Amino acid sequence: MIGGVMIMGDRGTGKSTTIRALADLLPEIRVVDRDPFNSDPEDPELMSEEVRTRIKAGESVPVGSMKIPMVDLPLGATEDRVCGTIDIEKALTEGVKAFEPGLLAKANRGILYVDEVNLLDDHLVDVLLDSAASGWNTVEREGISISHPARFILREGISISHPARFILVGSGNPEEGELRPQLLDRFGMHAQIGTVREPELRVQIVAERSTFDEDPATFRGKYEDKQNALTNKIVDARKRLKSVDIAYDFRVKISQICSELNVDGIRGDIVTNRASKAIAAFEGRSEVALEDIYRVIPLCLRHRLRKDPLADIDSGDKVREVFKAVFGLE
Amino acid sequence: MIGGVMIMGDRGTGKSTTIRALADLLPEIRVVDRDPFNSDPEDPELMSEEVRTRIKAGESVPVGSMKIPMVDLPLGATEDRVCGTIDIEKALTEGVKAFEPGLLAKANRGILYVDEVNLLDDHLVDVLLDSAASGWNTVEREGISISHPARFILREGISISHPARFILVGSGNPEEGELRPQLLDRFGMHAQIGTVREPELRVQIVAERSTFDEDPATFRGKYEDKQNALTNKIVDARKRLKSVDIAYDFRVKISQICSELNVDGIRGDIVTNRASKAIAAFEGRSEVALEDIYRVIPLCLRHRLRKDPLADIDSGDKVREVFKAVFGLE
Amino acid sequence: MIGGVMIMGDRGTGKSTTIRALADLLPEIRVVDRDPFNSDPEDPELMSEEVRTRIKAGESVPVGSMKIPMVDLPLGATEDRVCGTIDIEKALTEGVKAFEPGLLAKANRGILYVDEVNLLDDHLVDVLLDSAASGWNTVEREGISISHPARFILREGISISHPARFILVGSGNPEEGELRPQLLDRFGMHAQIGTVREPELRVQIVAERSTFDEDPATFRGKYEDKQNALTNKIVDARKRLKSVDIAYDFRVKISQICSELNVDGIRGDIVTNRASKAIAAFEGRSEVALEDIYRVIPLCLRHRLRKDPLADIDSGDKVREVFKAVFGLE
Amino acid sequence: MIGGVMIMGDRGTGKSTTIRALADLLPEIRVVDRDPFNSDPEDPELMSEEVRTRIKAGESVPVGSMKIPMVDLPLGATEDRVCGTIDIEKALTEGVKAFEPGLLAKANRGILYVDEVNLLDDHLVDVLLDSAASGWNTVEREGISISHPARFILREGISISHPARFILVGSGNPEEGELRPQLLDRFGMHAQIGTVREPELRVQIVAERSTFDEDPATFRGKYEDKQNALTNKIVDARKRLKSVDIAYDFRVKISQICSELNVDGIRGDIVTNRASKAIAAFEGRSEVALEDIYRVIPLCLRHRLRKDPLADIDSGDKVREVFKAVFGLE
Amino acid sequence: MIGGVMIMGDRGTGKSTTIRALADLLPEIRVVDRDPFNSDPEDPELMSEEVRTRIKAGESVPVGSMKIPMVDLPLGATEDRVCGTIDIEKALTEGVKAFEPGLLAKANRGILYVDEVNLLDDHLVDVLLDSAASGWNTVEREGISISHPARFILREGISISHPARFILVGSGNPEEGELRPQLLDRFGMHAQIGTVREPELRVQIVAERSTFDEDPATFRGKYEDKQNALTNKIVDARKRLKSVDIAYDFRVKISQICSELNVDGIRGDIVTNRASKAIAAFEGRSEVALEDIYRVIPLCLRHRLRKDPLADIDSGDKVREVFKAVFGLE
Amino acid sequence: MIGGVMIMGDRGTGKSTTIRALADLLPEIRVVDRDPFNSDPEDPELMSEEVRTRIKAGESVPVGSMKIPMVDLPLGATEDRVCGTIDIEKALTEGVKAFEPGLLAKANRGILYVDEVNLLDDHLVDVLLDSAASGWNTVEREGISISHPARFILREGISISHPARFILVGSGNPEEGELRPQLLDRFGMHAQIGTVREPELRVQIVAERSTFDEDPATFRGKYEDKQNALTNKIVDARKRLKSVDIAYDFRVKISQICSELNVDGIRGDIVTNRASKAIAAFEGRSEVALEDIYRVIPLCLRHRLRKDPLADIDSGDKVREVFKAVFGLE
Repeated sequence: MIGGVMIMGDRGTGKSTTIRALADLLPEIRVVDRDPFNSDPEDPELMSEEVRTRIKAGESVPVGSMKIPMVDLPLGATEDRVCGTIDIEKALTEGVKAFEPGLLAKANRGILYVDEVNLLDDHLVDVLLDSAASGWNTVEREGISISHPARFILREGISISHPARFILVGSGNPEEGELRPQLLDRFGMHAQIGTVREPELRVQIVAERSTFDEDPATFRGKYEDKQNALTNKIVDARKRLKSVDIAYDFRVKISQICSELNVDGIRGDIVTNRASKAIAAFEGRSEVALEDIYRVIPLCLRHRLRKDPLADIDSGDKVREVFKAVFGLE
Repeated sequence: MIGGVMIMGDRGTGKSTTIRALADLLPEIRVVDRDPFNSDPEDPELMSEEVRTRIKAGESVPVGSMKIPMVDLPLGATEDRVCGTIDIEKALTEGVKAFEPGLLAKANRGILYVDEVNLLDDHLVDVLLDSAASGWNTVEREGISISHPARFILREGISISHPARFILVGSGNPEEGELRPQLLDRFGMHAQIGTVREPELRVQIVAERSTFDEDPATFRGKYEDKQNALTNKIVDARKRLKSVDIAYDFRVKISQICSELNVDGIRGDIVTNRASKAIAAFEGRSEVALEDIYRVIPLCLRHRLRKDPLADIDSGDKVREVFKAVFGLE
Repeated sequence: MIGGVMIMGDRGTGKSTTIRALADLLPEIRVVDRDPFNSDPEDPELMSEEVRTRIKAGESVPVGSMKIPMVDLPLGATEDRVCGTIDIEKALTEGVKAFEPGLLAKANRGILYVDEVNLLDDHLVDVLLDSAASGWNTVEREGISISHPARFILREGISISHPARFILVGSGNPEEGELRPQLLDRFGMHAQIGTVREPELRVQIVAERSTFDEDPATFRGKYEDKQNALTNKIVDARKRLKSVDIAYDFRVKISQICSELNVDGIRGDIVTNRASKAIAAFEGRSEVALEDIYRVIPLCLRHRLRKDPLADIDSGDKVREVFKAVFGLE
Repeated sequence: MIGGVMIMGDRGTGKSTTIRALADLLPEIRVVDRDPFNSDPEDPELMSEEVRTRIKAGESVPVGSMKIPMVDLPLGATEDRVCGTIDIEKALTEGVKAFEPGLLAKANRGILYVDEVNLLDDHLVDVLLDSAASGWNTVEREGISISHPARFILREGISISHPARFILVGSGNPEEGELRPQLLDRFGMHAQIGTVREPELRVQIVAERSTFDEDPATFRGKYEDKQNALTNKIVDARKRLKSVDIAYDFRVKISQICSELNVDGIRGDIVTNRASKAIAAFEGRSEVALEDIYRVIPLCLRHRLRKDPLADIDSGDKVREVFKAVFGLE
Repeated sequence: MIGGVMIMGDRGTGKSTTIRALADLLPEIRVVDRDPFNSDPEDPELMSEEVRTRIKAGESVPVGSMKIPMVDLPLGATEDRVCGTIDIEKALTEGVKAFEPGLLAKANRGILYVDEVNLLDDHLVDVLLDSAASGWNTVEREGISISHPARFILREGISISHPARFILVGSGNPEEGELRPQLLDRFGMHAQIGTVREPELRVQIVAERSTFDEDPATFRGKYEDKQNALTNKIVDARKRLKSVDIAYDFRVKISQICSELNVDGIRGDIVTNRASKAIAAFEGRSEVALEDIYRVIPLCLRHRLRKDPLADIDSGDKVREVFKAVFGLE
Repeated sequence: MIGGVMIMGDRGTGKSTTIRALADLLPEIRVVDRDPFNSDPEDPELMSEEVRTRIKAGESVPVGSMKIPMVDLPLGATEDRVCGTIDIEKALTEGVKAFEPGLLAKANRGILYVDEVNLLDDHLVDVLLDSAASGWNTVEREGISISHPARFILREGISISHPARFILVGSGNPEEGELRPQLLDRFGMHAQIGTVREPELRVQIVAERSTFDEDPATFRGKYEDKQNALTNKIVDARKRLKSVDIAYDFRVKISQICSELNVDGIRGDIVTNRASKAIAAFEGRSEVALEDIYRVIPLCLRHRLRKDPLADIDSGDKVREVFKAVFGLE
């Protein structure tokens, strides 16, 4: 778990489009049919309680496959909408555990995309990050059922948990304000995106867009092979990831960079280690290379630096500079 | 799709009057009778689901014609009023998809006019721009229907989509504040309008207005031919538009202008290309001319420049200046 | 239509008293008895729909006469109270168009007085000015009636219009804040009123007031003839107004004044033309004289000048100064 | 009608105590028994509609006498509580005019005391001043009764008026903020009160207070004769008031003072005339003397002067200074 | 009545503990059993209306004794909770005067303690001070009972009064803000409390506290005699108080001090007189001594001085300084 | 009772993790089965009223054991949720004392953890600290029961108390604001936590975390012995605590340090004494040593120092510095 990715950048640079394209790129998943949690038919960690119970009971469940879910969190969504709700009245009067799943259920095993995350209520960001970090969503409510002979009312606490293992992606425009550092720190990686400046490149993008607008089907066909190759590369990388190694000396140097940059806590160290392994796996390596770290470390640390209002250097460049000093480059 | 037009200008300059006149100028449209979505009887992309279903089923639908709808968005309108509402209770208890269409349905194939758009709630502007860009309005609601044998409540998600292809026109007075850049950028074009200074011209306008006030019918008669000629010119331009070309070199230069003006993203490039083609079509050309670009580019880019509080030059003039430099004019 | 008159001035200068006196001064009107819209028994433009229908049907309506209505808009009045309300439930269930008229109905053919208009909600001022400008009040509501065989709910839009031709008079104390320019501009004329300085004049006012307080009936009797003469003068002026002319050269000069004063839009030009004709009619002339323009132009333009915080000259004087320069006087 | 008296001063100076004592000082009044409006059994201007109707009908009404009512307006009182409320439902369904009187009814023919008037809501101060100035309280509400054959709903407007002739006395501490000038101007007179500085006088007050605290009955007995004499003096003054005269020259000079002090409007002139006559009547004179004006004019004008933040002179002294200059004294 | 005592001081200095200890120190009181107002069985001024009625009717009431009540006013208490509420519906429909007593009833003849009084709503402080000053609590509500034959609704005003003679003690931390001067002035005395600085004394307090914590019963036993002696001294002082005298010269000098300190009103003079007598009575004297005044005057006047932001002297010291000057000491 | 511990520190430093680990470290407790207050089966001070009653009545209660409860107070929790609620309607109509326990019941004999305590409502912090200090939670509500023959309504006050002896632990990030000093002072101890700077140490933490993530069970096994040893050390220390002594001279010096640091009140002295004894007990000593005081005093006093915005020294260091001076060290 990287714990969420944050993308900040200029308007009109295709942030939303890119993220929405991810769902197409990632391989399909096998799911229990009509299950509101997209339960995996085999991995108990990715099953809803109901499915797990049925499988344990030797029942066979209908299986299908689907593109990974891509859930868009609407601005103004309530915590109930996100986490789901328990109907406590039903629980007490009819004895059924009545749970209406929310967006976190829908996003299980997929992507939860939050545009303009910097405009979201702090509390909700907190809920999202907790869920993204733990891979589970837990909803609790307490009811009251009266037992007449006793003097006290018995409290019936209902707690429902379901897997909510998703990639949290937030995006936003820095002109509209930042998240408070406390929350920022809990995003694993932080990308920044700018506008292409070269006119020829721009013309190319405009042309591609026109081509797509005129005939989406043909456009998609043209890129099908590339798209499939990329999907396969991701599938391979996932298999390789567990066996990728990172040298002790590299790990010390990563921590030294974090320390020199005054990064609070060790989330930065952990994420840099993990991301370096991931990129190595993607590139087909089983050992993290120097360049792997160099590629990911600015994304992992940039948002963990203390704001220095007088700094005339970009946070990413600052990270790269310290990287080079610590590794004795240049 | 240009994605909406914004008109800012002095009070009393006829902004609202002009926009309201557009509905008279544009040719009538053929519609399915009494259909709340102004469904086109032939183009499935412009039909409501109901009409599409009936036509597919070989049913014949009553057809009529109407002036293009001109919908005025009242200040204080709610999202429900704009997008329509789903009656979820009815859906669950009676099994009918109960949808009450909103203003976006009414505006399909016409003009949606929002006066004082700069006083509108950000969220609603967002909704309007999304709809204007995609040509569709989608309303979602989720209900609950209880299936007794199962332990969980099944969620009945209702989603209704209908075509909402309209020209979005916003107007406002700059003294009352601007939209935030994020939203401004999503308007395709941005016109500014000032007051006529020449006394004789003003007298003429006053006189025309007096003539109209005294006898509207006669006044309208006097301009009927000109009005019809203009309507025909628009009809022709629409037919020609698909075949209008724009030279590669022009496209690069447009992007170069955008780049030198530090326009974020490529919305500016796309809109300038489209608007140049449209004006060329209107002028009866099948190839975009230099002057076509020159006429539209300030409208397309003016609102995408970063605010420079020290600038002593109008944004439109700034665009024209860079246009001339890039094209080597003057 | 002048589009409303605004009177700003010191406290205690009799603003409210003067305006309330207008209702006594203007001639009585003939109305359909017990009609909540004060419908004119002859002019269809001033009839409610019900009366119009009955007359068309050859029905005879009871006729009476009344002083012109003088309606006081209470601070805190809601839009419903002002415009009236449609009972949509009744419309759908009983099939009757149930409309409860508001203050605009009550004010038809009379005066609507808004004290402390500068403390009123912007939106309500907007509604009042719209109605004052158009002479009509339109209330719309939408209901839902369910047609079972169909899949969609039919929307029953009810729209009721009634004449609301009234003189809008706002007053206020400038120390309590101004209307925003956008709204100010939509008032046709703008009067300012100050305190009498001469002690003898003040004593006279105090004495008149004492006399009135002691015996209102006698006081009223003393001024009856003057009052009647003034009423007749107004009646005559109204008849003459349509035939009053204004020379082309005067009209150009009026527009030149507006232009030099940087008045936005041409509302100032239109109102000055109309007010000059009205004062000429009042003075018994059929041709606008130079002095007519001079008397009304400060009232018509004063509130349309841009605020210049450094100006050491009153807006009215500024208008007079430009008037003299343009007309080559002094 | 003086239109209300305002008393501002230090805390602990007996403002509230003094005003509450007024009710004891003023002569008892004859009232219709159990009438919620304290109706006078003879003067129709001071009767409730019900009493007036019964007397007109030749009915005899039970008569009693009471101390003049002294009503304390609690901070936080609503307009309904102050003015009374109409039960419109009852009016429509049972046909009775159901009115529940408020504090203004209770205060008829007495004193309405508002402590900390400067903390009161502007709107309520407005209502109080309107009532105090006119001597009447009018409550309006509109109901709806449906006449089936007709297409429209008939509006049943209920308006109830009752006499509310009371002395409005406001008090407050200037440290807690002032009323806005608009409202201040509508109070007839404005007294200021400070703390006694002489130790012996203070000891005397403390001693009096101790004596009262120890034995209220004896204390009251000691002052009974003085109290009665004062009551009689007030009764005599009231009879004399109508015949008191004020010389023309004095009236001009009063207005000249107002003019030189830049007092807006002529409320100041009117109140000074009236107050001078009242004090003359109190002193047993039938002609206003110079000293009468001198005693009351600072109370009448002090709060009508424009605030001059640089002034190093008390408003009352400023009035006295201009008084002396205008009257050629000193 | 001193009118309330205010104690401001550092946190952790035992303010609350001290005040809570007072209830133990003061002698028990005899009360009517189960009476919610702690009615005295003999003094009618301290009886509830019900008890008074029963005793008048010759009924015998059950009598008991209790420690004086010590009521803690919780932050966030409403006026209803403090004053009690009248159930007007019950009054009208069942004809019973239904009153639910509040905290002021509970506090009758005891102590009402308000911690963090400076955080209390102004209006509630006002209510508390009014009650503390008068010794009574009055609750009023008005109901409506409909008399059918009459046209008007009769108003049924219910007013319930009960004794509420309590010692009001407020405490607070000055760092959290002060009461506004208006309210501050109405507290009779104002104590300030600081932290003990001497280490040995602190150790002693810590030790005493430890001893208490370990064995509360033994700790209490150790101080029983001292506690009883103090209680007796208070009982004696109460008997003596009425006969204590204060010389005229002393009274003049007290007022002179107040005057020189610019104390507004004479509350300061009154309270100083009373407090001097009280301390003299406590010390067993029947004549106020100079030292009695010196001990209490800073507590009585300190909070009545105008704030001087530049003053480098404590308010209490300032009072003592003027005391010495006026009495010619030092 | 130490009265709560507060931990402030950088994000990502494991504050929450550490506190959550405490529940595992502390020995299990014996409880009455299914009792919502975790009642101790033997100590009446730790029993709920119901259990106490049943045991007194000679009933035998089912006993079990559990890990000490660790209750997480969610941000946004209401006072009802924290303290529990009384159902007054049930109490009056059915005669049962209907109490629904809150989080304080759940936390009895365990830990109540409040993350981001500095964002909590002041009032709730107050409630928590009161409960933490007294070890009891008391909920009061008042109902009304009508006794017909009597004139008054009898008030039925219900008050329920239950043990709530828990360790209050608050944590927060200082960048998000501090508690107000008043509340801060009531926390017994205040720890600050920073980020580890040494790269090797960071690598070690990262590695441990990875090991844990890969196989939690094995990781836990590796530390089982150490964990048990620590638990035993705590159990021993608890037994020893009552007999630990602290020399008089040490106590004086502690108070001298508090005095020189201008610590308000004596809470700082008390807590330092207690904490010194606790650490001595933990270290196996029966007499407090100098080093015991030195270790705990910064935690006990740091948050009680007045803020000095100019201070260039950390509060903890300031405490240590004065400690050394007072004890004559260095």
